[in-house]
Amino acid sequence: MAPPAHPDPTPVPLAHVVIVGGGFAGVAAARRLADQPVRVTVVDRHNFHTFLPLLYQVATAGLEPADVAYPIRTIFGSSDNIGFRHGVVREVDHDAGRILLEDGSAIAYDHLVVATGATAAYFAIPGAAQFAMPLYSLADARRLRNRLLASLEEADAAASDARQSLTFVVVGGGPTGVETAGALSELVRIAIRRDGLRLDPSDVRVVLVDQAARLLTGMSAPAGRYAARELARMGVDVQFGRSVVEVESRALRFADGERLETAAVIWAAGVTASGTLAHALQEASGPAGRALVRADLRLVDRPNVWAAGDAAAVPRGERELCAQLAPVAIQSGRHCAEQILATLRGEPTRPFVYRDKGLMATIGRRAAVAQVPGVGLVRGTLGWWAWLGLHLFYLVGFRNRLRVMINWTWRYFDWPSGPRLIVADAETAD
Amino acid sequence: MAPPAHPDPTPVPLAHVVIVGGGFAGVAAARRLADQPVRVTVVDRHNFHTFLPLLYQVATAGLEPADVAYPIRTIFGSSDNIGFRHGVVREVDHDAGRILLEDGSAIAYDHLVVATGATAAYFAIPGAAQFAMPLYSLADARRLRNRLLASLEEADAAASDARQSLTFVVVGGGPTGVETAGALSELVRIAIRRDGLRLDPSDVRVVLVDQAARLLTGMSAPAGRYAARELARMGVDVQFGRSVVEVESRALRFADGERLETAAVIWAAGVTASGTLAHALQEASGPAGRALVRADLRLVDRPNVWAAGDAAAVPRGERELCAQLAPVAIQSGRHCAEQILATLRGEPTRPFVYRDKGLMATIGRRAAVAQVPGVGLVRGTLGWWAWLGLHLFYLVGFRNRLRVMINWTWRYFDWPSGPRLIVADAETAD
Repeated sequence: MAPPAHPDPTPVPLAHVVIVGGGFAGVAAARRLADQPVRVTVVDRHNFHTFLPLLYQVATAGLEPADVAYPIRTIFGSSDNIGFRHGVVREVDHDAGRILLEDGSAIAYDHLVVATGATAAYFAIPGAAQFAMPLYSLADARRLRNRLLASLEEADAAASDARQSLTFVVVGGGPTGVETAGALSELVRIAIRRDGLRLDPSDVRVVLVDQAARLLTGMSAPAGRYAARELARMGVDVQFGRSVVEVESRALRFADGERLETAAVIWAAGVTASGTLAHALQEASGPAGRALVRADLRLVDRPNVWAAGDAAAVPRGERELCAQLAPVAIQSGRHCAEQILATLRGEPTRPFVYRDKGLMATIGRRAAVAQVPGVGLVRGTLGWWAWLGLHLFYLVGFRNRLRVMINWTWRYFDWPSGPRLIVADAETAD
Repeated sequence: MAPPAHPDPTPVPLAHVVIVGGGFAGVAAARRLADQPVRVTVVDRHNFHTFLPLLYQVATAGLEPADVAYPIRTIFGSSDNIGFRHGVVREVDHDAGRILLEDGSAIAYDHLVVATGATAAYFAIPGAAQFAMPLYSLADARRLRNRLLASLEEADAAASDARQSLTFVVVGGGPTGVETAGALSELVRIAIRRDGLRLDPSDVRVVLVDQAARLLTGMSAPAGRYAARELARMGVDVQFGRSVVEVESRALRFADGERLETAAVIWAAGVTASGTLAHALQEASGPAGRALVRADLRLVDRPNVWAAGDAAAVPRGERELCAQLAPVAIQSGRHCAEQILATLRGEPTRPFVYRDKGLMATIGRRAAVAQVPGVGLVRGTLGWWAWLGLHLFYLVGFRNRLRVMINWTWRYFDWPSGPRLIVADAETAD
């Protein structure tokens, strides 16, 4: 057969979009690009996506790591245009248009989305980075769980000689602090009652401290009051106006000079993007190390580099920034993807507009508080079910939803078989 | 009110039975002593019981750690006479009648049950202890899973430059080796097909080697032939008559001089009690470091120290020893408990008699082989269901059974969402 007189023109290669970070923002961006005329590579140091809002449940032995983590490859298994690369990105070579990985390899991009998230902010408080326990990765959660359970075992072993007391301190009264303090109080109560620990529940204190005068400052004052009341009812000692000035191995010190011995300091005081890839993208970065972006989420000085989620100073209107929250990450990640597609089609980009879907926090079984725009405050059992439904809805993958549902149903009916395992090797590096 | 003329006599304190090890033997012993007129303390380095027969499933990402582990305190939560102590036993002070723990504390006993299990046997093969990966603890399983998944990711990353080949070698053709090789072959196939790895399934080899001429030497010849046929059908390269003489970081060498490069050497070649507490109990111990016991499972030279499970040279008739199997551990643990109760009542002890309930091994989904006394060989799908039912029956705790059932149902119907997480910190110490 004769060759065709006019061979097909060489097909234009598809643009390569590289997304660094497989969290809410990165996954949302990649999802939006699935089956679009681009080639996508998601790069992450972990091969799984972590559902951060439920990490405190892993830390307090309510859920298992696999309940809140989902392999990134599996998320995009049915999308042929999305690949995954397991690795740590060392730096961005803007001039060559490629990222450099720690293993020495490089990946070229046409568009880059930086969605590297944030880490715990220690505000230069001495000892905090070394001794306080953050809750911002699966490894953090496993380490904290080990510490909590091992502390209870140590106190039980020592209890044959003398009555033991034990204090856990949670620093920070935002959703993470409130949720962790509530769940920790439940864990202690269940562990003592069900596991036959020789400890008196009144000797085990959970203290929640914040330097502000109320909890949940991101929500309305009634929401904060409700959370404080529910936590107090659960036996949590809530203390306001307390500034931590130093953290030691098993103690912390406040601005008023008080020193409190504690089995663990749980750090829920805030997050920062400083020290991450996002922070190194530009000459100067925004507040808390977040990448400075234009209204369309493109970097101020790079036409083909975008930033989303906690790593980006996502604008809200003219003068404000969005809070570092999961809904912002999801919406901003999706927005980056849409603007990249528009740019590739030669169309103008649109500014990012955050759609506030409300805020929620749970305070133990059957108590939660949600602030829904246009509805107001939802709380109590109704709030709890709303919280559960919303989280299950967002949990990636049907099986994870089912597993979490089973675990939560168990918890709700107070059955004793939570996964209170001390996995010895969790106390080590990330 | 006047004091009673004749105060009650001081009650005789209950005898204290200390059980070292919360595996099959230790848990069976403690269960038998629940609500009996003794005080019981179970001591273990982990706060959980591990269901060892399913460890290979954790290693091949079919199950999660929490599916095969169960907190020891929770197992005995309803038995007031059973306590738990989290710690590592350093030695037994026979003269003082107490055990010494690594944290410096001591626990006095009236009767001691040593049920410390066994560890992988390396037969002094150079490099084996350092580089081969055993499968005898939850930490082993997590390390192996990380290695397997990380090897696939590394090969995928390198596959952009050149076609990559990958070999995994399983050493040992007993149940653990057969089950691991089968599950590993399935994992590789699923990971490549579902996760979009850029590897050709024919480039990823799973090799099972044994120095014997057949598989499952503990079972009948037809069972071994069936297993070999099924593994071959699943793509496993089964090689007989091969002795490993050296293990390197990413390779192994055979007696015939062949050197095979491999991403992982999985060590299922046998177990030993050497180096454990059981080994140090006596001047001389039995084969593979197992404690020498009399017919009633009491140590030959100590009237109040007993040994059970893999740690003991459990006699079978006059001249034989029982194999190191879960049913032997369960029956011997229970037997120790019964003889302790008899001794405390001043009754004579009875010799241990092993009741053979048969042996089983599974070779992937829908294929298993079981040898049942009085019935003969059961294999294929029926064998698989029998295997599943039996394992679920023995899995401690209703929730664990339910979780495993769900995971297995998923697996059976080949859904893609297995927990293929690389948890970075698992590559570290025990």
